[in-house]
Amino acid sequence: MTNISKFILLICFCYTTTSSASAQELRSPDNNLTLKFSLGNTGSPVYQLSYKGKSVIKPSNLGFQLKNAADLLNGFEIADTKQSTFDESWKPVWGEVKIIRNHYNELAVTLKQPASDRFIVVRFRLFNDGLGFRYEFPQQKNLNYFTIKEEKTQFALAGDHKAFWLPGDYDTQEYSTTTSNLSEVRGKMKAAVTPNVSQKTFSETGLQTPLMMKSKDGLYINIHEAALINYSTMSLELNDKDMVLESVLTPDAIGDKGYMQAPTQSPWRTIIVSDKAGDILMSKTILNLNEPTKFKDTSWIKPIKYVGVWWEMITGKSTWAYNDLDNVQLGVTDYSKTTPNGKHAANTKRVKEYIDFAAENGLDAVLVEGWNEGWEDWFGKTKDYVFDFVTPYPDFDVKELHRYAASKNVKIMMHHETSSSVRNYERHLDTAYKFMVDNGYNAVKSGYVGNIIPRGEHHYGQWLVNHYQYAIEKAAEYKIMVNAHEAVRPTGLSRTYPNLLANEAARGTEYEAFGGNNADHTTILPFTRLMGGPMDYTPGIFETKISAYNPENNSFVHSTLARQLALYVTMYSPLQMAADLPETYNKYKDAFQFIKDVAVDWDDTKVLEAEPGDYITFARKAKGTNNWFVGSTCDENGRTSTVNLDFLDANKKYIATVYADGKDAHYELNPKAYVIKKINVKKGAKLSQYCAPGGGYAISIIEIK
Amino acid sequence: MTNISKFILLICFCYTTTSSASAQELRSPDNNLTLKFSLGNTGSPVYQLSYKGKSVIKPSNLGFQLKNAADLLNGFEIADTKQSTFDESWKPVWGEVKIIRNHYNELAVTLKQPASDRFIVVRFRLFNDGLGFRYEFPQQKNLNYFTIKEEKTQFALAGDHKAFWLPGDYDTQEYSTTTSNLSEVRGKMKAAVTPNVSQKTFSETGLQTPLMMKSKDGLYINIHEAALINYSTMSLELNDKDMVLESVLTPDAIGDKGYMQAPTQSPWRTIIVSDKAGDILMSKTILNLNEPTKFKDTSWIKPIKYVGVWWEMITGKSTWAYNDLDNVQLGVTDYSKTTPNGKHAANTKRVKEYIDFAAENGLDAVLVEGWNEGWEDWFGKTKDYVFDFVTPYPDFDVKELHRYAASKNVKIMMHHETSSSVRNYERHLDTAYKFMVDNGYNAVKSGYVGNIIPRGEHHYGQWLVNHYQYAIEKAAEYKIMVNAHEAVRPTGLSRTYPNLLANEAARGTEYEAFGGNNADHTTILPFTRLMGGPMDYTPGIFETKISAYNPENNSFVHSTLARQLALYVTMYSPLQMAADLPETYNKYKDAFQFIKDVAVDWDDTKVLEAEPGDYITFARKAKGTNNWFVGSTCDENGRTSTVNLDFLDANKKYIATVYADGKDAHYELNPKAYVIKKINVKKGAKLSQYCAPGGGYAISIIEIK
Repeated sequence: MTNISKFILLICFCYTTTSSASAQELRSPDNNLTLKFSLGNTGSPVYQLSYKGKSVIKPSNLGFQLKNAADLLNGFEIADTKQSTFDESWKPVWGEVKIIRNHYNELAVTLKQPASDRFIVVRFRLFNDGLGFRYEFPQQKNLNYFTIKEEKTQFALAGDHKAFWLPGDYDTQEYSTTTSNLSEVRGKMKAAVTPNVSQKTFSETGLQTPLMMKSKDGLYINIHEAALINYSTMSLELNDKDMVLESVLTPDAIGDKGYMQAPTQSPWRTIIVSDKAGDILMSKTILNLNEPTKFKDTSWIKPIKYVGVWWEMITGKSTWAYNDLDNVQLGVTDYSKTTPNGKHAANTKRVKEYIDFAAENGLDAVLVEGWNEGWEDWFGKTKDYVFDFVTPYPDFDVKELHRYAASKNVKIMMHHETSSSVRNYERHLDTAYKFMVDNGYNAVKSGYVGNIIPRGEHHYGQWLVNHYQYAIEKAAEYKIMVNAHEAVRPTGLSRTYPNLLANEAARGTEYEAFGGNNADHTTILPFTRLMGGPMDYTPGIFETKISAYNPENNSFVHSTLARQLALYVTMYSPLQMAADLPETYNKYKDAFQFIKDVAVDWDDTKVLEAEPGDYITFARKAKGTNNWFVGSTCDENGRTSTVNLDFLDANKKYIATVYADGKDAHYELNPKAYVIKKINVKKGAKLSQYCAPGGGYAISIIEIK
Repeated sequence: MTNISKFILLICFCYTTTSSASAQELRSPDNNLTLKFSLGNTGSPVYQLSYKGKSVIKPSNLGFQLKNAADLLNGFEIADTKQSTFDESWKPVWGEVKIIRNHYNELAVTLKQPASDRFIVVRFRLFNDGLGFRYEFPQQKNLNYFTIKEEKTQFALAGDHKAFWLPGDYDTQEYSTTTSNLSEVRGKMKAAVTPNVSQKTFSETGLQTPLMMKSKDGLYINIHEAALINYSTMSLELNDKDMVLESVLTPDAIGDKGYMQAPTQSPWRTIIVSDKAGDILMSKTILNLNEPTKFKDTSWIKPIKYVGVWWEMITGKSTWAYNDLDNVQLGVTDYSKTTPNGKHAANTKRVKEYIDFAAENGLDAVLVEGWNEGWEDWFGKTKDYVFDFVTPYPDFDVKELHRYAASKNVKIMMHHETSSSVRNYERHLDTAYKFMVDNGYNAVKSGYVGNIIPRGEHHYGQWLVNHYQYAIEKAAEYKIMVNAHEAVRPTGLSRTYPNLLANEAARGTEYEAFGGNNADHTTILPFTRLMGGPMDYTPGIFETKISAYNPENNSFVHSTLARQLALYVTMYSPLQMAADLPETYNKYKDAFQFIKDVAVDWDDTKVLEAEPGDYITFARKAKGTNNWFVGSTCDENGRTSTVNLDFLDANKKYIATVYADGKDAHYELNPKAYVIKKINVKKGAKLSQYCAPGGGYAISIIEIK
């Protein structure tokens, strides 16, 4: 080789080295997903993602605007890159499957910003079903304490996708999902922002996560975050000219977006991708991006099937409040001297009826709301010292109910409505948890209804994210399980803190009594809200016309009765409520049998069919058994669901009990028309089942031993 | 009498009746003060105050602007009036005198606002030395929960008074007092607002309370508040055209000024008046307006004379921090693996030296600052989890020091610097107090340096007033005494909560090391800051040139040594620090003898002479003895103080030890020139004592038995 040739070769090699020093590529284990990272002209970090050769995320910027400090947006050099592989399996304490495989290829890029002498790390983990990436801020001389003005993470989309979206909001997720193209978001935002007692939208094109999308060529894309700890919740701002989403963090009372102390990191930003809708539902990436649990003993953590003194108040039949005063002062008002309103449901006698029902039907617990002093004036008054979480109403006998429940092997589920008076809750937290332990409660439903106190903070800001975490970790010290309502939507933290059983954090069944949910609501939620963790959806309403309980309430549940059964399978949660009243269930014992039988913990899960907004059919294997449960939900159109029971064991026989819509069923016009049939099935059996508009079916498949 | 005469008589009578139905008059028990209340043309409540016929407060408005509700400013009718008298005496747990007489005439005016069907009560209490009045909001149908937009209490002054003022500020009181006419406030405000790590002025003519004034014809007037509980701190806005002061409450993070639930009340607004300056100092009106204590057992509350590991850090000789890291994480940073900086004062050996000194000199306690993890990066970083209040540095042996101190009958005073991370403090409060009890601590100095977290709140807003109160009440549950620094200035709450021994809440001795205080500072503070309660002024600095401790610090204490002794008498507090270092005191044992001898609790107090800004001389009788202590402080001019010891008992003989400035003493040029002389005295003895510029004298008068 001549010198010139060598020289040219050297140049080519250097160029290659230089290119590979600036442009990084990472592939998923199965090679379907490709991540590329590079620096733009101004030294800005840029990433892009493609799936089977199709662009999912076009070149998108990364970085931060800081307050009173130079931004971390450009002027970077790549100081180091490291690639690695991880492949381990782990067992969740509870879950949809017994074993979860955590398999990814990782790229960690150390970026140095010479002008400021600071460096950050961007870590990418590419799974077969998606990408997670986060920012890391190692301890270093020139980056110590810093305040985030805004995170500037872009997700440049490859098209005007169909999206299943909620308005971006710093305080509520309780909106109905709007299904539209991204280009239509702006025009539909006004109608989408329905009233809520605590809400704060930030943009005409602001969106919440999890955000579910489907491209025109059939790619399913879900954007969310994982491991949201000590950081502000991410929403997305849509630039609907370019179809670029950009992160928007939730501000605090003075407009700052995050207070950071190095060494620290952001949550993982997640992009789950597949050409199969079912893969989105089955993704464990968000869980996998969370840290393993450090809990030494998890034996006290058990899934719960429960009923509750709740729906009768939601419908307006009963009240949380004991009397009709409009002004009470804890520790001052002598409730025993007031006139009860005669509609207070959480009284000893009534609670015992629920306990009896739970015991008769093998349910684990009875939630009781309205047991404690303070409900007369708790709502909408920005009241600071609103509850003390330990003082019962005169008609709720704590000790007697403890004894009675224990004698029936039923737990009472505690209720801590905080009324968003968060300092007040924290002041009482140890006392409240100790009260629970002393009186036999091992699980609490907490709530954050109303605007946050301290005023100016938002439900999803760093301040409150820190609080929810504090409540969960302290609960674990007391071996208490938590079901937090109106709190931040989950981001897979249950892996690390398995006592966080569920959240609400979306528009749940209660809204069926507040005007109704869309008939397709539950064909969407698993693709959106449930991506980060279980939802306490509280299904199981059999008496769908609310006027049956409260003549003044004309709402109705937009669901057939059969579909209500299906939800125990399609809306995964380790905490499942049979939300209707015992006396109603007793009128439909044959249908209720499914709720008695259905498991709340699983060894395996399959998506039999799914299309967001249209239908979802799951099959799940009950933990420690060979029994399966199938559930199917569909939209307002109704359909015929055809599934193959090929997940059954080849050498076993089963009895399948099918709870289905009657042929004339309709979620509004004829919701209670259901049929139950028993059939023998074995592996490979095909089922073709009619689903009414707003309907579905549920099947228990019990091994014949 | 003719019919016409009767008719005229009737009209006169009705007119008189009508007048007296609208105009109310109240007199002090000695008749010197007259309060008049009436309704103005628009039904606005108006009050005025005069003293010995001279106007003190010209007709001034009262009322409130509410948020999202009709104002409570006008449209009132007088629905009821009640006059009463109260005359009782009570014994404070600690104080300047043994018995306090509470003697006032009261007028309670019920005002109804027909347009809104609401009513309030304005209650006036007229003492011989001043007026207190407050608003009350009884429980009623149309006034339940309400938010204050602003309180609109006026104090229309009768002239352009000389005022001793601090800039109105929502976060700090650590300004030097400016002495000027009210008309000069605007022009002097800029210079008055010196830098502070947490400050928020609100107006070019905004003022803090207590506000001390002197009219041109020699009337002393002091405005403040009493019983500030669950309400926002009041500052004053001066309209310098009309010489009208108006209340300005401290806003919260969203600009609201108070969240109220009826039945409730505002604090008392107080106007202390006399033509004798000494009467202002002796006033007990603010204490009297507070509720009696409900504490059943107060035996654990005892005044404290203490030294402390503190001044050596304030001067810069030592550090609070253990090492020189700029970033620590509690529970993560392993301090035992870090390199100590060699200047950490709060180590076991050094603390024992202070304990020895305290034991040798009959002092009660040793304050130790910098004993706990977290001081390396606590300041100015808005750090949330900044201290845990229980984890000592590696060189501070909690158990050993507990044992050692107890063996010497000395207490260690706990230190809780919160760094204004208030949620963090509350989260740790029970644990921190329990740690104190378990380790022999019965008193805590707390601090709130820096901007408040939750961000957006202010040191003096309702949110923080509520927090300080929470900390005091919880401390009482643990039998802990509290000395709160950087918290709200006191308003007499120690009557109700006698475990609140003192606050800082003003510019104290530490500022002598941060550039110095004015030489007349202590001739003003008793007329201003001390009106609401004791100040932990921490006097007793003998080595007044800070460079003796830290060559890099050129500050000096603007005081002679003799005046430092006087401050133990002139700056009343049940908690008194001998702030200098033991090794310095050991060089001046003769002068230190006064600090050993002076009492911290009193049976009687006399003002021998006083003029705000010029000089104050107090005499106090030590509790349970016949001994007296005299202290005199003067301004930068120096003077000769002539006093009469006519308060001594007639039939007793005493030895007076006089600690005075040397003839050439000067606070800057020759501060340590002092002379000590012993003389026999008896009742009626006259003393004529030279006081140097920035000087004074201290006298112990011990009974010869």
